[in-house]
Amino acid sequence: MRVLITGGAGFLGQKLAHAILAGGVGGKSDGQISKVDELVLWDQVFANSTAADSRSVNLTGDLLDGDVLRKALGDGVDVVFHLAAVVSAQAEADFDLGMRVNLDGTRTLLEACRNLPTCPVFVTTSSVAAFGGAVSNPVPDHQAPTPRSTYGTTKVIGELLAGDYSRKGFIDGRIVRLPTITVRPGKPNKAASSFASSIIREPLSGQAAVCPVAPDTPLWLMSPRRAIDALAMAAQLPADCLGDDRVITLPGLTATPKEVVLALERAAGQAVAERVEWRRDPAIEAIVATWPGAFEAKRARDLGFIADQHVDEIIRAYMEDEM
Amino acid sequence: MRVLITGGAGFLGQKLAHAILAGGVGGKSDGQISKVDELVLWDQVFANSTAADSRSVNLTGDLLDGDVLRKALGDGVDVVFHLAAVVSAQAEADFDLGMRVNLDGTRTLLEACRNLPTCPVFVTTSSVAAFGGAVSNPVPDHQAPTPRSTYGTTKVIGELLAGDYSRKGFIDGRIVRLPTITVRPGKPNKAASSFASSIIREPLSGQAAVCPVAPDTPLWLMSPRRAIDALAMAAQLPADCLGDDRVITLPGLTATPKEVVLALERAAGQAVAERVEWRRDPAIEAIVATWPGAFEAKRARDLGFIADQHVDEIIRAYMEDEM
Repeated sequence: MRVLITGGAGFLGQKLAHAILAGGVGGKSDGQISKVDELVLWDQVFANSTAADSRSVNLTGDLLDGDVLRKALGDGVDVVFHLAAVVSAQAEADFDLGMRVNLDGTRTLLEACRNLPTCPVFVTTSSVAAFGGAVSNPVPDHQAPTPRSTYGTTKVIGELLAGDYSRKGFIDGRIVRLPTITVRPGKPNKAASSFASSIIREPLSGQAAVCPVAPDTPLWLMSPRRAIDALAMAAQLPADCLGDDRVITLPGLTATPKEVVLALERAAGQAVAERVEWRRDPAIEAIVATWPGAFEAKRARDLGFIADQHVDEIIRAYMEDEM
Repeated sequence: MRVLITGGAGFLGQKLAHAILAGGVGGKSDGQISKVDELVLWDQVFANSTAADSRSVNLTGDLLDGDVLRKALGDGVDVVFHLAAVVSAQAEADFDLGMRVNLDGTRTLLEACRNLPTCPVFVTTSSVAAFGGAVSNPVPDHQAPTPRSTYGTTKVIGELLAGDYSRKGFIDGRIVRLPTITVRPGKPNKAASSFASSIIREPLSGQAAVCPVAPDTPLWLMSPRRAIDALAMAAQLPADCLGDDRVITLPGLTATPKEVVLALERAAGQAVAERVEWRRDPAIEAIVATWPGAFEAKRARDLGFIADQHVDEIIRAYMEDEM
């Protein structure tokens, strides 16, 4: 089995790669899991140029470059995890970059998959950013997307494209709408939701962090562990579970920054929790405060996708996995 | 005031052009209607190469051609009516053509409008084809699109693009989701819903027509008169009525083919109505039978958009306008 991960240098890409190489995560539309013979990680740049496993290859280059695409896809792939994207605040600041990577990049990859001799399983991610403005609370599965950011717009367009490519039999697509992933390891990124990790991660490593939204802003959260499980599970679902509707709004956990910081205090003490400074940033709030804080996610739950149960569990997982 | 109509040779484009030249339909975001000084009709081919009015110019060429675009937009336009599209059955038969015209064409036009010195009002059309599969009946305004055709997919993507371009202040967009327009004059086209006009138009001109769907299939209909009124009204709505949600699902009239043919019999007699042959076509049914037959259209009604009241009215309007 041959697997491609775009955004393979990102933290989800790296975690997914480790999971695949460790346990043979992958998927065919009949639900069968196979061993991975070759794993291609594709990204613009890697921290380490060489891969740690003989089955794994790091590939760099432009998502829209035909030569790079041919190398990435070779004679065919069984599963594509398309994770590469320009994140929310960055796409809001640079509209053209967001459209180029998130829309043109996704479409180019879909077209390349369409032209393969095999019909690959194509797992990609959408986001809570599909929604903004007035929506029902909790958001039902059949709620019309109302993106209020270029990132969210391109993510919903990606859902539609992957859906129609699946309906036409060009790919076997599965799009998971991810909650805000917390706690991301490493440094803050240009996602407007980056603070949701910073307010846990930085204090735990002795640094100050700023929460740029109101303490009672409801956030829809998921741990990296659950996200990797969800991506793997999405790849392995039988196609007939999905029919023509390829979008799965994942279940998450609703928590406010205040609740997150109280959990941090329970996990690491008052001095650590006091490293969080509350300083609202209108530019961040304009994006994040439009995202709903709760979703029904009925379809995903019925399919067996699982949410984190409590913020304490999310913080504990981070401390176990990353510290 | 300078107005551009793409798809200007089409029947809606031609009717809209006549209405604009006759009465000064147009719009600014403050709701003010102005006189039209120049009307550019753009299409691939026109039946008559010269326009009938000195203010009107016919322009041919490829929607994606930079030179043609520059000619169409000149130093700026006040209102764009973007009606050009590959229709449903044609886009289903030729995926690449549908994507090229409906997605790339719309995006290219939006980009060109973004680069104008003025921010034009940009009216475009979406469709009942935004929906398919299991949806609520009647479909509420907040129902998630579930396109089950490439046409529907590209129409929803157009909604999202025009929405985000509006949010960014690049255009002042208004997207109307049209019901199936009945009765279209002229010849059948490659829309899967073409029969909804044929079963009235052909019998009235002494010809046979085939209804390719079950007699009790609910259809969501609108007359050309109402459609032109709706396009004009969409252009003239103050932008602050719409906020960031630029999609307006128009009100329509629910009727089955059986009810349409009974109305035809009332209008023109039994012999005319008997020219309709009932012969189901699975390819047409696969597209049309997934379209909902009723929508709430609450927002549009609140904004003042009006539906036809009865099929008899639709048939009478056709006989008055076209025969």
